Amino acid sequence: MPDTKLLQAFENPHPERDYLIRHEAEEFTSLCPMTGQPDFGRIVVEYVAEGSCIELKSLKLYLQSYRNEGLYYEDVTNRILEHLEACLEPRWMRVRSEWTPRGGIQSTVEVESGERPEIILE
Amino acid sequence: MPDTKLLQAFENPHPERDYLIRHEAEEFTSLCPMTGQPDFGRIVVEYVAEGSCIELKSLKLYLQSYRNEGLYYEDVTNRILEHLEACLEPRWMRVRSEWTPRGGIQSTVEVESGERPEIILE
Amino acid sequence: MPDTKLLQAFENPHPERDYLIRHEAEEFTSLCPMTGQPDFGRIVVEYVAEGSCIELKSLKLYLQSYRNEGLYYEDVTNRILEHLEACLEPRWMRVRSEWTPRGGIQSTVEVESGERPEIILE
Amino acid sequence: MPDTKLLQAFENPHPERDYLIRHEAEEFTSLCPMTGQPDFGRIVVEYVAEGSCIELKSLKLYLQSYRNEGLYYEDVTNRILEHLEACLEPRWMRVRSEWTPRGGIQSTVEVESGERPEIILE
Amino acid sequence: MPDTKLLQAFENPHPERDYLIRHEAEEFTSLCPMTGQPDFGRIVVEYVAEGSCIELKSLKLYLQSYRNEGLYYEDVTNRILEHLEACLEPRWMRVRSEWTPRGGIQSTVEVESGERPEIILE
Amino acid sequence: MPDTKLLQAFENPHPERDYLIRHEAEEFTSLCPMTGQPDFGRIVVEYVAEGSCIELKSLKLYLQSYRNEGLYYEDVTNRILEHLEACLEPRWMRVRSEWTPRGGIQSTVEVESGERPEIILE
Amino acid sequence: MPDTKLLQAFENPHPERDYLIRHEAEEFTSLCPMTGQPDFGRIVVEYVAEGSCIELKSLKLYLQSYRNEGLYYEDVTNRILEHLEACLEPRWMRVRSEWTPRGGIQSTVEVESGERPEIILE
Amino acid sequence: MPDTKLLQAFENPHPERDYLIRHEAEEFTSLCPMTGQPDFGRIVVEYVAEGSCIELKSLKLYLQSYRNEGLYYEDVTNRILEHLEACLEPRWMRVRSEWTPRGGIQSTVEVESGERPEIILE
Amino acid sequence: MPDTKLLQAFENPHPERDYLIRHEAEEFTSLCPMTGQPDFGRIVVEYVAEGSCIELKSLKLYLQSYRNEGLYYEDVTNRILEHLEACLEPRWMRVRSEWTPRGGIQSTVEVESGERPEIILE
Amino acid sequence: MPDTKLLQAFENPHPERDYLIRHEAEEFTSLCPMTGQPDFGRIVVEYVAEGSCIELKSLKLYLQSYRNEGLYYEDVTNRILEHLEACLEPRWMRVRSEWTPRGGIQSTVEVESGERPEIILE
Repeated sequence: MPDTKLLQAFENPHPERDYLIRHEAEEFTSLCPMTGQPDFGRIVVEYVAEGSCIELKSLKLYLQSYRNEGLYYEDVTNRILEHLEACLEPRWMRVRSEWTPRGGIQSTVEVESGERPEIILE
Repeated sequence: MPDTKLLQAFENPHPERDYLIRHEAEEFTSLCPMTGQPDFGRIVVEYVAEGSCIELKSLKLYLQSYRNEGLYYEDVTNRILEHLEACLEPRWMRVRSEWTPRGGIQSTVEVESGERPEIILE
Repeated sequence: MPDTKLLQAFENPHPERDYLIRHEAEEFTSLCPMTGQPDFGRIVVEYVAEGSCIELKSLKLYLQSYRNEGLYYEDVTNRILEHLEACLEPRWMRVRSEWTPRGGIQSTVEVESGERPEIILE
Repeated sequence: MPDTKLLQAFENPHPERDYLIRHEAEEFTSLCPMTGQPDFGRIVVEYVAEGSCIELKSLKLYLQSYRNEGLYYEDVTNRILEHLEACLEPRWMRVRSEWTPRGGIQSTVEVESGERPEIILE
Repeated sequence: MPDTKLLQAFENPHPERDYLIRHEAEEFTSLCPMTGQPDFGRIVVEYVAEGSCIELKSLKLYLQSYRNEGLYYEDVTNRILEHLEACLEPRWMRVRSEWTPRGGIQSTVEVESGERPEIILE
Repeated sequence: MPDTKLLQAFENPHPERDYLIRHEAEEFTSLCPMTGQPDFGRIVVEYVAEGSCIELKSLKLYLQSYRNEGLYYEDVTNRILEHLEACLEPRWMRVRSEWTPRGGIQSTVEVESGERPEIILE
Repeated sequence: MPDTKLLQAFENPHPERDYLIRHEAEEFTSLCPMTGQPDFGRIVVEYVAEGSCIELKSLKLYLQSYRNEGLYYEDVTNRILEHLEACLEPRWMRVRSEWTPRGGIQSTVEVESGERPEIILE
Repeated sequence: MPDTKLLQAFENPHPERDYLIRHEAEEFTSLCPMTGQPDFGRIVVEYVAEGSCIELKSLKLYLQSYRNEGLYYEDVTNRILEHLEACLEPRWMRVRSEWTPRGGIQSTVEVESGERPEIILE
Repeated sequence: MPDTKLLQAFENPHPERDYLIRHEAEEFTSLCPMTGQPDFGRIVVEYVAEGSCIELKSLKLYLQSYRNEGLYYEDVTNRILEHLEACLEPRWMRVRSEWTPRGGIQSTVEVESGERPEIILE
Repeated sequence: MPDTKLLQAFENPHPERDYLIRHEAEEFTSLCPMTGQPDFGRIVVEYVAEGSCIELKSLKLYLQSYRNEGLYYEDVTNRILEHLEACLEPRWMRVRSEWTPRGGIQSTVEVESGERPEIILE
């Protein structure tokens, strides 16, 4: 069951400035809440840290915990944002999920929280 | 005959924030209104939901309903926007159609409605 | 209804040698015989002509005639081969169909008839 | 001889909103005014229509009429803009020409007229 | 538990000739037998049918049944070959698995059975 | 009018061995014999020289001479082979023409003459 | 020795508007001022003309005149800008040099002069 | 041990204007501070020089000095920025590190210092 | 110091047939024996197993042991082949190393041992 | 002046087997013998060594010595083969030159000497 407790942080070694951290996970899978069929996607997490950075291995295990959960794309993406926010309290964060096609349609969902810092142009 | 009734929505699970939803349909086909010949294209729908999200399978069936309709590129694109708007009443929406070449010319049409939210940079 | 009568040939202007002719049609669509849902694919026809070459516009119209037919991938591919063979009586012919993914699976079928000439290496 | 009379328009089916129309012609050719040698290029036309849209086949024939004209890249691009403007009176228009290399140098010219609407970000 | 019973066949509509059928499944996942961690890969099945063709949806469900199995790459690939052979008794078959990198190393396994027919050059 | 006289050769500087020479011309254009509309393509010439090599500038001018000729794809390709053969008397030659799509169909024609030497594998 | 005298201009045929002209030269080479070894790069020149446009052949010859000069990347790029400015007196100009890797490091230098016009977004 | 002393500068040949210098190093490697395993990445340094430019060979040697250091991605990136700043005192600088995947996750860190000049749009 | 003892094998689960196993390691680094500078490359190992398969983690650690060794490209490649052969006694094996450019030259070395089985076409 | 004396060899460390060595030089330039204009190309050298391997830095310097020589493409390619053969006496060698386009035509020349060994399939 995905929740914030699976996530571990380490102390931001350079809190004196805003800088961008991005993790792209190519191997995400969950289940469709309607049919129970597996969905496959790619999760991109970008953030500017305040006091904490996400530990990479804990992020991997956290994302793996969605493997047998039935959730809409929109819900998965918002939940990941909320769990990471609760764990890291970042200055800014954005989560994007990109899903392999179903019925000839490829879907993407992107969620953001906090004020976008000046260093983020695109 | 394409119309709004073919579309089905589900309740937006996270109306508390603006976030981007994008669906890209690679397998669109309709007919040329001049010659009756088939046209082929790719439809990209992007929106920020208010109370409703589009259900993916109903979107697929709706787009398939253009299969035997004779319509200009400009008309197809504006109609899809209008039908989806009527169904979802989104905060913002953009529809783009990209067509396979005819006579060595590749055409694209892009329509947008609502005020573009701050989260949409590009 | 696809059949050989839709196809038109012109006289091979250079029957004195074996040479390769290839036509790749990116915009093929037919229906699934199980569900009635549209399938989309790409058809590649390669041949070495004897007395006749296929006229390009008639090939386009012939391929369009599958638009509302319900047929397996394997059947579509073999039928196209058989109709073109009946029309052209080529020295050698190969037909390949490549289909857009269904259920995360991309399918390809390839059929060939006649002895492969020396000029065809691959 | 390229001129505005070759171009035909149809009535904009959705004048109630600004929307982007783009046509990319891969097969443009004209002659070098210095040497008479053929030049090859790609023409991209983008516009927001007022009352009229360009009819696609007439655009193709218009572009073909440059085939035996000797003109600088800079001149070709500005002329296409001016002829299309005269025919369509669009709210905004941009024309770009991209040329195949000569002497190891690849050239591009881009011309624009009218106030760029808010929907054009890039 | 993956086994042959999950697979369903339909009658080969054109047994009169050798022709190639290929299915590429992008969304395969199983577990590492050492660590229990998920593995992700791509499975390519190619065959020349005798009396039976594999039904596409049953192939999808069969491949999904590996989702919670712990197996070496080498074992997964050979098992898929053996189960499909038992179901279809094809004239020739080849199965390839391509795995996403682990420790900076990308692995591929390819298994084949039956005499390679003349139509298979590569 | 394309003919052999436009082509100029220079003496093969290394007739003591078989070696491959290839020229790829991206900017070929001729006319459709049915409609008079321009066709655009790419011509690839490969050969093993005997006593003569083709001079590059004369090849360019020769290919430009097709600009206002109405010819089938199949005819263009065979003619180029025949004219180059007459000029160079090579040990082996292959000509391929690849055409931009018409009606959603991309066509390729490939002609070869002389015995393929051992150095040509593909 | 590269200098402004090698450059030739022709009269801007459309001074009535700001429009973008870009030339990309793939075949630039000069010498390293430290080691005398050849450097290879790609030069991109973009400008908005006032009264004059650069003649393409003279640009080619000018760039070739760096072939045996020993100069830092930073110096080459600024010099090209200054020479072209002196010759053309453009409304705006930007020069970028992109160099092939040395010691596993790929370098790029970009210089600009004049106020960037509204038509230049990127 | 990476420090500022390994870096050497030369005098900026064109301090009269702001211009962009970028160096992309594909061959960076350091050690994971948790496991001691090697990490591999790509470092991109961009800056606008004041009085000094970084000498390319000294940059290469400086980056090589991380080969046997155990440091977090976040730390590597900030340190490179700080050492280069100390050496060059640039008007503006940005450092990005892009790492090869670990556990199916690709990470990127981007740090910036100084006010971004007008010439930097993206 | 790289040697055979670092490598560990597991029992081939399917010795009853020839099948291809390939591992591609993107993150190889060693030192130049002339200058002591780091070299970076990609190692591809392909084999047909007899009784043993290479364990993936031990292969990773073995390849890492070259990190501080000074060896020619040709020597690295032959040594990897010899060590893997000694460990696995495969039916056939091929090792290829592809190196990042030095002085504008990209080098590749490929070594093979044992009779190439029929299943290896390319 | 390019000649064999510029090339230096080192002793083949593994003469006990046939293995492939390939060097690809992206930065080759020479002069056109007709016009004196610079030509740019890419040289690929592949060989199976007998007693000697080419030293990489000497190969770089040798290729640079063509910088101010006026030679046909066909001549450059055959000369490089002959000089390397004289220096290395390899079991087999192949040299390919690929040239940037002139007049819209891209040229390639490929020369080979010695019996192609079994390990060279393509």
